Amino acid sequence: MPRHELEYPKEPFSTVKRLSDRGRYNLEAIHSIVNTTPLLHVSFSSPNSPFPAILPMIGQMGSFARPSADLGDVLDLYLHGYVSSRLMNLSRDTPKSEEATKGLPVAVAASHIDGLVLALTPNSHSYNYRSAVLFGHAQLVTDVAEKLYAMELITNSVVPGRWANSRIPPNAAEMQSTSVLRVRIATGSAKIRSGMPHDERGDLEDEALLERVWTGVVPVYQTLGEPLPGPYNQVAEVPAYLRQYVKEANADIKSAAEEAAVTEVAKKVRDDE
Amino acid sequence: MPRHELEYPKEPFSTVKRLSDRGRYNLEAIHSIVNTTPLLHVSFSSPNSPFPAILPMIGQMGSFARPSADLGDVLDLYLHGYVSSRLMNLSRDTPKSEEATKGLPVAVAASHIDGLVLALTPNSHSYNYRSAVLFGHAQLVTDVAEKLYAMELITNSVVPGRWANSRIPPNAAEMQSTSVLRVRIATGSAKIRSGMPHDERGDLEDEALLERVWTGVVPVYQTLGEPLPGPYNQVAEVPAYLRQYVKEANADIKSAAEEAAVTEVAKKVRDDE
Repeated sequence: MPRHELEYPKEPFSTVKRLSDRGRYNLEAIHSIVNTTPLLHVSFSSPNSPFPAILPMIGQMGSFARPSADLGDVLDLYLHGYVSSRLMNLSRDTPKSEEATKGLPVAVAASHIDGLVLALTPNSHSYNYRSAVLFGHAQLVTDVAEKLYAMELITNSVVPGRWANSRIPPNAAEMQSTSVLRVRIATGSAKIRSGMPHDERGDLEDEALLERVWTGVVPVYQTLGEPLPGPYNQVAEVPAYLRQYVKEANADIKSAAEEAAVTEVAKKVRDDE
Repeated sequence: MPRHELEYPKEPFSTVKRLSDRGRYNLEAIHSIVNTTPLLHVSFSSPNSPFPAILPMIGQMGSFARPSADLGDVLDLYLHGYVSSRLMNLSRDTPKSEEATKGLPVAVAASHIDGLVLALTPNSHSYNYRSAVLFGHAQLVTDVAEKLYAMELITNSVVPGRWANSRIPPNAAEMQSTSVLRVRIATGSAKIRSGMPHDERGDLEDEALLERVWTGVVPVYQTLGEPLPGPYNQVAEVPAYLRQYVKEANADIKSAAEEAAVTEVAKKVRDDE
């Protein structure tokens, strides 16, 4: 645990400008959002396309050099992918310039919705949300030990403890067919909105409107359903680590969404975004 | 309804290469994924940054010219944003070249997770998912009627019927402060995985492994919680349109996730992505 709360540098491209009171730069807040997001969105320039590329990927923050590092420490982002994909090929290509030796520039987004914020006017409608963006350089992980570290990290992000409860270690063919990217983070930021709706004064003074329009928050949360055994499953009962995870994850995420509905995180309140 | 099922053209940057049997190009499948995704991720090149930009945004497919168009028709993507944001500024800037008159090139991703697919080996783990990417050119909507059309479309995507059940129309200040982008779609694709885990033959023949590792799918679905009234709400009961939506949306999305667990959509089965 660092003695001081570390923050990412505010670059022009990473600073939250609109509703800046919702901006967050501390590593712990940003890394927490990334690590609880089951699908990240990774964007990069695509040399032969007029459009940027964007891919949903699974990933986790971690430190191979210091696996005991916590969420507030300097961490890398590990992304799981496949050697054949465009992103992996681009990050494996021989660097063309000094800048390129850092790796492929990527932007990675992680977003959660915690609630529908229903206000008096369409313009004051909003979501309660937590969103983070990280900017960095992606490189293919070639060290076998680091690759195994990242594969275990990512597998356990799907269900804690799943790695040890599956057939490990991966064999040679599996190691060959799987690629892992390590993103060295240059900077990042998060934006968080929570709490109840806020309308403009003019609308709040309109009694007929107040009597007509229901206002409040509908909490939104991801739910894990009852585990459904597959066609070749032979384990009669759902194992305790899985049953426990489903139960705890559901309780935690539901109460986080309900808590977000009634707790303001932003100092200055503006609701039009 | 078009007489034939329309498909987006397969461009090199939009074609699903890995596990191509999971690729979908028909407009209806792609537009359905976009319209049911509460947060889209929009990526574009940022002129003063070494990294691409990526923003979570709310959006819906629609046709202002023919509002009765259905999901399988040629549609535009409307994105909701703010005049001050970088994306809006870029798409409003005076075009510098003939190419630029089309608008700002963007890539938009929409992704759902429907289940955790737990296999015998870490490498065969997967998600059940539906993901779509659209590529197109974004321009600021300047026509007032079109802007109102898009604002209503987007508000009703949060809760059906909410537009008519709020204070409308927006006043001059609200129209001024809100911007809408229209993305003319160049092409797009979707990728869908559903069904149970599939492991390699070698692992399936390992009886000790089969007796040790639980395999199957944990369905994943978004849940809307009990609506929580805000501090100035004066409507005693949650209105029928909202209560009904919460109930129906929850039932629909849960059964879709459970259905995805037991139904294969891909012709050729490969599970390592």
